Amino acid sequence: MASRKNYYVGVDLGGTSLRAMVVDEKYRLLASEKVRTPVGQKPRVTIAKMAEVIKAALGSAAIRSGNVAAVSVGAPGTINARHGVVEQAPNLGWTNVPLASELRQRLGVPVRVDNDVNVGMMGEYALGAGRGAKDLVGIFVGTGIGGALIINGKLFEGACGGAGEIGHTVILVNGPLCHCGHRGCAEALASRTAMERDVRAAIQSGQKSLVPKIMRKKGHTRMTSSVIQSALNKHDRVMEEVFKRAQYYLGILVANAVNLLDPERVVIGGGIAARLRDEFVAAIRETAYEYFIHAGRARAVKILPGKLDDDAGPLGAVVLARRGAGVEQGTLKK
Amino acid sequence: MASRKNYYVGVDLGGTSLRAMVVDEKYRLLASEKVRTPVGQKPRVTIAKMAEVIKAALGSAAIRSGNVAAVSVGAPGTINARHGVVEQAPNLGWTNVPLASELRQRLGVPVRVDNDVNVGMMGEYALGAGRGAKDLVGIFVGTGIGGALIINGKLFEGACGGAGEIGHTVILVNGPLCHCGHRGCAEALASRTAMERDVRAAIQSGQKSLVPKIMRKKGHTRMTSSVIQSALNKHDRVMEEVFKRAQYYLGILVANAVNLLDPERVVIGGGIAARLRDEFVAAIRETAYEYFIHAGRARAVKILPGKLDDDAGPLGAVVLARRGAGVEQGTLKK
Repeated sequence: MASRKNYYVGVDLGGTSLRAMVVDEKYRLLASEKVRTPVGQKPRVTIAKMAEVIKAALGSAAIRSGNVAAVSVGAPGTINARHGVVEQAPNLGWTNVPLASELRQRLGVPVRVDNDVNVGMMGEYALGAGRGAKDLVGIFVGTGIGGALIINGKLFEGACGGAGEIGHTVILVNGPLCHCGHRGCAEALASRTAMERDVRAAIQSGQKSLVPKIMRKKGHTRMTSSVIQSALNKHDRVMEEVFKRAQYYLGILVANAVNLLDPERVVIGGGIAARLRDEFVAAIRETAYEYFIHAGRARAVKILPGKLDDDAGPLGAVVLARRGAGVEQGTLKK
Repeated sequence: MASRKNYYVGVDLGGTSLRAMVVDEKYRLLASEKVRTPVGQKPRVTIAKMAEVIKAALGSAAIRSGNVAAVSVGAPGTINARHGVVEQAPNLGWTNVPLASELRQRLGVPVRVDNDVNVGMMGEYALGAGRGAKDLVGIFVGTGIGGALIINGKLFEGACGGAGEIGHTVILVNGPLCHCGHRGCAEALASRTAMERDVRAAIQSGQKSLVPKIMRKKGHTRMTSSVIQSALNKHDRVMEEVFKRAQYYLGILVANAVNLLDPERVVIGGGIAARLRDEFVAAIRETAYEYFIHAGRARAVKILPGKLDDDAGPLGAVVLARRGAGVEQGTLKK
């Protein structure tokens, strides 16, 4: 019994924070640790930090690594899941980092790595807003816009593992420039970064907004979800207009995906959805319904905010690690 | 042996013509019939005509209906494939027509019905431009723009059978009005109908074009693929510009689908592609490659014109009818 491997560590390697959750095979949370992601460091420093956080979480849970079935990591960027390599992660400044093997050496347990959006979507599918559906589209709105598809209960990764780049759907040919170098991508129209750009432009052009004051008060240099929420609560006109426009574009993005894929459900995840829930999603849903081509049928498509918030990543990573045993949908026990 | 059911009839119920092909289980073509689709008639008249054409084709092939395993029909519009019902077919003026059961009564053989685009894509997958690939996106450009997805060798129809409506992907928010009532759909930007609208507008605004003369000469009231081809051959400037713009939009449409689904291959079918092949597809491919988000990987995605042309429909219908036996990819024997 002493060496039964029935514990899992789910890790979310985010651009700002690094989280590890220890759960048992029924997703009961045993311990959780969170630190700031090292900034401007070499990969080995960040990986050492990850190992440390994972060990600390296991320590809090009083679980020995011999009882750990797997450590499963969600990482940003282009991931080669088969080999556990982070191929490209611009946010971290990483190129071809063999994260799985590096962590495995340090921890002595099997490690798997997948894309953070895929991982988060898998969490929502198995334990959150996706429960009860088998075909899902996930759209994660944050500094960028990420996407993930679940088809017939399985993560759909495409022929080369590159599926899900819904943020780079061009919905406005010749629209604003995107980080990817193209114009008119959804990400350039409706991400938090795009909203911030539009708010700043409105202020620049002479419109009054409380956003800069709110940012100073909160000590933020970026227009975070919490800043957006405060500005909306104060009925800031610039924020309201920018937010409404982003919702409209996201509604069209959802409709494009539904018209192509006819899923049962669409989950809108990410920081803004976590904070504002239906205050964010309701208007997206309304526009999407308007743009559905099979009007009668498609109203049956549920469009929901994510439920797991920050836990979607670590928990989804565990769900993926356990995929060999089949991904059952369940309830999260805390 | 006399009653071995090893023959199939594939039928394409198009807005202009009605075709039936008799093939054996190895897709060897035994007979083919084609008539004009009755216009402005009640469904029963058209169905009677279909039965007549099917019987004529079987007669030419000297096959008795007792040896027919199935008749399989591709029909335009929204189809309930499970029940063989044409739910909505605006081109035909049909609503909730139980086509499969009506034909079955007249012919005494099993009948299945599916959407014409799905059926055409299945033909290309099994016998045409899709051979060798398992994950495909099909885009059929004609008077409208239809789409079909094949995932892991199977037609992907979505949760409610409505998947594939790629023509109604909005790629230019607030763009030109589409037949569907929305603005900026790919169909409103790059279908043959959209091209014709743009050519007419250019002429209206004073630009010179040979298109009206070519149409008169050919006796066409619409800008058909053959008119487009003639105008391009004569280096008609208006046609060239309109064509190029449509190709650009189609390239973006392809990129959107590839970024989301990461297929192995994209097949561009329909009348223009059948007539112009790479003269149509090359520029679409170039723009698509430019807009791929995983630049390195995605160049591996082949973007090809359809190969089967008018036969894609009837043959694909047979492929779908035989799906129970697994959809093997093969070679068409004529």
